[in-house]
Order: sequence, then structure tokens, then C-alpha cells
Amino acid sequence: MRKIILGVGISLDGYIARLNGAVDFLFMPKGYSMAPFFATIDAAIMGRKTFDAALRMGGTFTDSKMPTYVMSRTQLPGKREGLIFTNQSPLDLARELRARRGGKDIWLMGGGELAREFLNADLVDGLYLGVVPVLLGEGIPLFPSGFPQRNFTSVENKTYEQGLIAIKYERVRPKPRRLKPAP
Amino acid sequence: MRKIILGVGISLDGYIARLNGAVDFLFMPKGYSMAPFFATIDAAIMGRKTFDAALRMGGTFTDSKMPTYVMSRTQLPGKREGLIFTNQSPLDLARELRARRGGKDIWLMGGGELAREFLNADLVDGLYLGVVPVLLGEGIPLFPSGFPQRNFTSVENKTYEQGLIAIKYERVRPKPRRLKPAP
Repeated sequence: MRKIILGVGISLDGYIARLNGAVDFLFMPKGYSMAPFFATIDAAIMGRKTFDAALRMGGTFTDSKMPTYVMSRTQLPGKREGLIFTNQSPLDLARELRARRGGKDIWLMGGGELAREFLNADLVDGLYLGVVPVLLGEGIPLFPSGFPQRNFTSVENKTYEQGLIAIKYERVRPKPRRLKPAP
Repeated sequence: MRKIILGVGISLDGYIARLNGAVDFLFMPKGYSMAPFFATIDAAIMGRKTFDAALRMGGTFTDSKMPTYVMSRTQLPGKREGLIFTNQSPLDLARELRARRGGKDIWLMGGGELAREFLNADLVDGLYLGVVPVLLGEGIPLFPSGFPQRNFTSVENKTYEQGLIAIKYERVRPKPRRLKPAP
């Protein structure tokens, strides 16, 4: 099954951006590459606020080769500017994307409110966190409170220059109970 | 100089406890030992709420060989039950402890509100975090917002069984500016 991987850079105190949206604290250390991660995914999903933030930072998606979804309840659904706007629920979008067999994994780009929705629906299969060694003291959290406990295990943990740590986690779900046949 | 090390176990979403104070999600993986850390410290500091939580969990400090301070504005200062209650400010306590030369490092045990006070006063020289691979969804944060940015670098990063990751960070302070001699 195609996995949904929440992949984001965060501060040590769990922020994806400063309160004003700035992400100046994020950096790409020498020897670090997103290429191995990108090789595992072929679709991306972001929330509308993350999309707005990307636009404000001068981002464009018209050259994107990967289907990239913007989840918004207010924007008109449909394809434009290299993106696919959708007002589907996380569960409906996940079902649609997972129905395509043979697809690679799906990158959940953020932000925190969308992550919370996906966590609430237990749709997050993995985390890929780049932890920048800074305490910002305030900001926009990746994991705003308001979802049930979700257990993971770490499957990769690497230290890079300037103290950045990249960690991959996989979701550990309780095994479904099997009914014992009557004796 | 004796360093102050904030050493705590946290969930992946940065909580030191559940909202009701429970820390059942913390665990000690096989092969993990606090002994090397304990060998580097010879004093401990905790906030009054953390002390209360420790009491509720049945903790006692009467056998403690290490001077252990409880910071409280409301409790009567003085030694009792194996502890040293103090209403000093973090800065005053840090100055007093650091004045004892030859001492080892000082363990700041938490909780979050005390950590914030120490971070505000820029008294945290290092972090030693045991990151449990669970998203709790809500809880008591180790880093409640409300302090200025503090930069660190990672100096140790180890993965243990069941996906627990222990990371040591050291504070990176801006170098003091040297006034150039007049030409």
C-alpha cells in the first residue's frame, strides 16, 4: 500500500515556522540530500496555509512533475498552476491515491493543522523529520494538540553537519484482533 | 564552568507528561543506561510542579546523595526530606552553584515552566533528550513558548531499542564582540 509520509523540517521545539511564517532557521547541511526521499514518492499533499506560505516565499509549482494536491475547503477544486486543488477529506483523498496500485509513497508536506487532520484519521504511516538544533521559543507547531496517541518506531537516524538530525519513523499500529474459533 | 543540562524524556511531540501528569509512555530501552550521564553531574534542580508530580508517583528523595534543589516561590526555603527548597531566581541559584569550583555539571530535571525560566535567562548549556517514538496528541510541553531563540548543536545521537533516540545538544552562544583598538 502507498504510504503517507509526513516529511518536514522542524526546530527542536517542534515548530515548522516562526509565528510570522518565516523559515529562515531551516538549513540544508553539507552532505544532506532530499534525493533519496524524493525517489520514494510520486505525489505530494499540502494544506492551503502551507500553499499560501510557499507562494509568499516566491514558490511556483508550474514545473512540478509530481501530482501535488492542495487541500482547501474554500478554494475552487480543480487543476491550475501545476497543482490539484481538492476539497476532499483526508480519508477520501488517501483512498483515491492509494487505489492507484504501483504508486510510490505520498509526501504530506504540512502544515500542522493538516498533519493533525491526517493523524486524527490515522492516515500518517511515517514521519521524516529534519530536526534543526535551535529552540525558537515560539512558532507554528508541526503537532498542534488535538489528536489521539499514535505510536511509531524509528527506522533511520542520522546526524549531519551543524547538528541537524534526520529521523525516519514508521507507524506502529496495534494488530487487528483475531477472533478465536469456538472450541 | 559547571554546565546546566536540561535532561528529560519527552514524546515525539515534545511532551514531558500527559495532561493528567502521567508519564506511562516513557520507557527505558534495553542497553540504555543513565549511569554515564549521572557520572557527569553532582547536583539537580527541579521545579515545584515536577516535585509534586514526583511525590504523587511515590518518589522520595531522603536517600539522595546529590544536592537536589526544588525551586518554589511559595514553599518555605530550607533543607528537608533530602531536598533543598529555594526561592532564589534561576540566575541566583546558578551563580551560587557555579561558584563552587571543581563541581560537576548540574541536572535541570524540568519541568517545562522552569526550563522556560532558565532558557529566558540563557542558563541552559546543554540538553539531554530521550525522545520516545510516540505522538501523544496532547500533554505538558517541555518547551512552552515564551523565550528567545537559543541555538544548539548536537554532540551525541544514539538510537536504542523500540526506537528511543537519545540526543545530546550543546548551547552555541554568539561570540562576544571584541572592540577593535582604535587605529
